[in-house]
Amino acid sequence: MIRAVLLDLLGVVYDGDVQIAGAAAAMERLRGTGLPLRFVSNTTRSSRDAIIAQLAGLGIEVEDEELQTPARAAVKWLRKHGRRPHLLVHPDLEVEFSGVEGGSDKAVVVGDAGEAFDYASLNRAFRELIAGADFLALATNRTFKDADGLLSLDTGAFVAALEFASGRSPVVLGKPSPEFFHSALAGLNCPPADAVMVGDDAESDVAGALRAGLGAALLVRTGKYRAGDETRFDPAPTAVVDDLAAATDWIISRAAA
Amino acid sequence: MIRAVLLDLLGVVYDGDVQIAGAAAAMERLRGTGLPLRFVSNTTRSSRDAIIAQLAGLGIEVEDEELQTPARAAVKWLRKHGRRPHLLVHPDLEVEFSGVEGGSDKAVVVGDAGEAFDYASLNRAFRELIAGADFLALATNRTFKDADGLLSLDTGAFVAALEFASGRSPVVLGKPSPEFFHSALAGLNCPPADAVMVGDDAESDVAGALRAGLGAALLVRTGKYRAGDETRFDPAPTAVVDDLAAATDWIISRAAA
Repeated sequence: MIRAVLLDLLGVVYDGDVQIAGAAAAMERLRGTGLPLRFVSNTTRSSRDAIIAQLAGLGIEVEDEELQTPARAAVKWLRKHGRRPHLLVHPDLEVEFSGVEGGSDKAVVVGDAGEAFDYASLNRAFRELIAGADFLALATNRTFKDADGLLSLDTGAFVAALEFASGRSPVVLGKPSPEFFHSALAGLNCPPADAVMVGDDAESDVAGALRAGLGAALLVRTGKYRAGDETRFDPAPTAVVDDLAAATDWIISRAAA
Repeated sequence: MIRAVLLDLLGVVYDGDVQIAGAAAAMERLRGTGLPLRFVSNTTRSSRDAIIAQLAGLGIEVEDEELQTPARAAVKWLRKHGRRPHLLVHPDLEVEFSGVEGGSDKAVVVGDAGEAFDYASLNRAFRELIAGADFLALATNRTFKDADGLLSLDTGAFVAALEFASGRSPVVLGKPSPEFFHSALAGLNCPPADAVMVGDDAESDVAGALRAGLGAALLVRTGKYRAGDETRFDPAPTAVVDDLAAATDWIISRAAA
């Protein structure tokens, strides 16, 4: 029986600036079940406020406490360890780190910097790493579906570049980190085994959620999904469904509420 | 007994624009032995002509046939397979590919593009790869010693990024490809087991040469060398020496000529 629902955003609820057909209506039906919802997004090109505003523009209301982002997890990590961030992130995400001071020891924080990824910025981050800075990856996704409909390079590619050159391994803060999924469920009084995850990334969303102990993970055929993704990573999805509307049917038929 | 000598350039003969102390004099002594010399450089920020001119400026005369570069190996590959190059290389290297037409099928060629590595150019290369283009890496070096004396990101980091995101593996044309070492020895009537390699990269120069069957590989403590490099990769160097002058002593005492 399902007692909580975790949803990815980009590729599940919207693509670029448009709603994926039927997503807002499906969200309404999910809300109607009374099941608690959490949004677990690895998108790091926008601030939390921008994500919430974008969803509102699509007719989807999301409370601040319902949105779990890697940047928030990173800020928590930096405060706990007393590290000063060396940011290699999108300019629109920098605001999330504005209150973090830290000490003299640094941590390199890598997000999806987009056009801000260039040789000079990558080399500065690399030099911090070999000088001993900690290494935080907001995500390790390989690709995302870009506004033009084609796949584009995501954070994971640049994390892999820094990892290869420095010989250092990152602490991963977003999906597929088990802590990220568990943290999203915190306060819901729902063990991971009673939660379901819905995403378009067979590796980070689906295999990641199942490795984190979630009871089920659904792969949708929207967003970055490409034929064959369901067999590419281990564990395989609990089910593959057309879109969020079909995922909602699947969830409602198994809901504890 | 040694019958041929392969030398790396950057970090062995010169650093940035200056000779490494004693390198030109050591080269003179090596020339005096009569052993054939070949220069096997993974540097892909300069054209062949620029490399030869730079060496001449340091008082070191090198014949065209003595210089083996990944770009030359790539051109050979492109012609053999009839592929049109999609270049992700330094602007100064593009001239090396000017005569290559190829057919409609493409091959992405990745070199040390330096400042020309940016999100847009990497993403274009990534999209060619997932659309089916072949994948050629001029080198896979992790780092090089930059003009300011610090390590900087080398080609391998960007190859790793593209490999991670695309799921494709490159054909490696420079060191440590065994074909690259063997090709440098072509026409010398010297089996690999009778040749020695001298380099500052414990992985690409030294372990690579030994895996290619060379009889010996010397690691110099100049260039990018950092304490402990000699134990980091397998196979370990035949010997670790201070610089090219010390490597020359080692070679002369074992020369067949």
